Amino acid sequence: MADKDKNIETTDQLDVEFNTDGLVPAIVQDVDDGTVLMMAWMNEAALQATLQTKKATFYSRSRDKMWVKGESSGHVLEVVEVRVDCDQDVLLLRCKARGPACHVGYQSCFYRVTNAQGHLTFVEQRVFDPDQVYGNA
Amino acid sequence: MADKDKNIETTDQLDVEFNTDGLVPAIVQDVDDGTVLMMAWMNEAALQATLQTKKATFYSRSRDKMWVKGESSGHVLEVVEVRVDCDQDVLLLRCKARGPACHVGYQSCFYRVTNAQGHLTFVEQRVFDPDQVYGNA
Repeated sequence: MADKDKNIETTDQLDVEFNTDGLVPAIVQDVDDGTVLMMAWMNEAALQATLQTKKATFYSRSRDKMWVKGESSGHVLEVVEVRVDCDQDVLLLRCKARGPACHVGYQSCFYRVTNAQGHLTFVEQRVFDPDQVYGNA
Repeated sequence: MADKDKNIETTDQLDVEFNTDGLVPAIVQDVDDGTVLMMAWMNEAALQATLQTKKATFYSRSRDKMWVKGESSGHVLEVVEVRVDCDQDVLLLRCKARGPACHVGYQSCFYRVTNAQGHLTFVEQRVFDPDQVYGNA
């Protein structure tokens, strides 16, 4: 463990280690029942927006822009607390979910379990029709 | 939403979208109490090792090698199930944790909460001394 890492791990000041693209992974957890809902990416501006507005805000790599979760669907994530890991290169957002988190219609994006052979079993029921919520894209 | 994405989201075959470095983020959750313990990276070999051995196995970017969580500390993560997200570019390992997950001595790596000004509050107690478990590096 490098001295640099030791400093990161014990500091009481947020100093996020963004990757070479200027992004950090942000895990979203339902603060009430502990469900891991999704993971998305933040840049510095999205992190600041999240901290100030308390609405989970991310950076879309495919659309190359910041986006507020729920801006289309109404399924916003109200941020109760933001945690940072030991190395300050991963964030954990503990949120009140105002609707399902997954854009394909499930409560959580993690609705499938794999077995050792790579066969996926669906372990959640779809709770909305994305075509109705987002329109036919 | 692209057709490609739709196919990914509804398939029942695991087809992980590794990033340009050949890696995928893997979130670890305690299957008993729901705590998010850590996030690390996997390459294809680490994923296959995890699926076959049921011990969480990752790829270290800094050491450029595969590693089994707990190989030094004994704090292994016994994998109960592996989930994949809608886009198949994030994994969720639901595990039985045989000891604290964080290498600096906490149960979870997410032991600090930030406020809007970036001041961190420690919200967990340290449960072991890393110098005693890993030796003085």
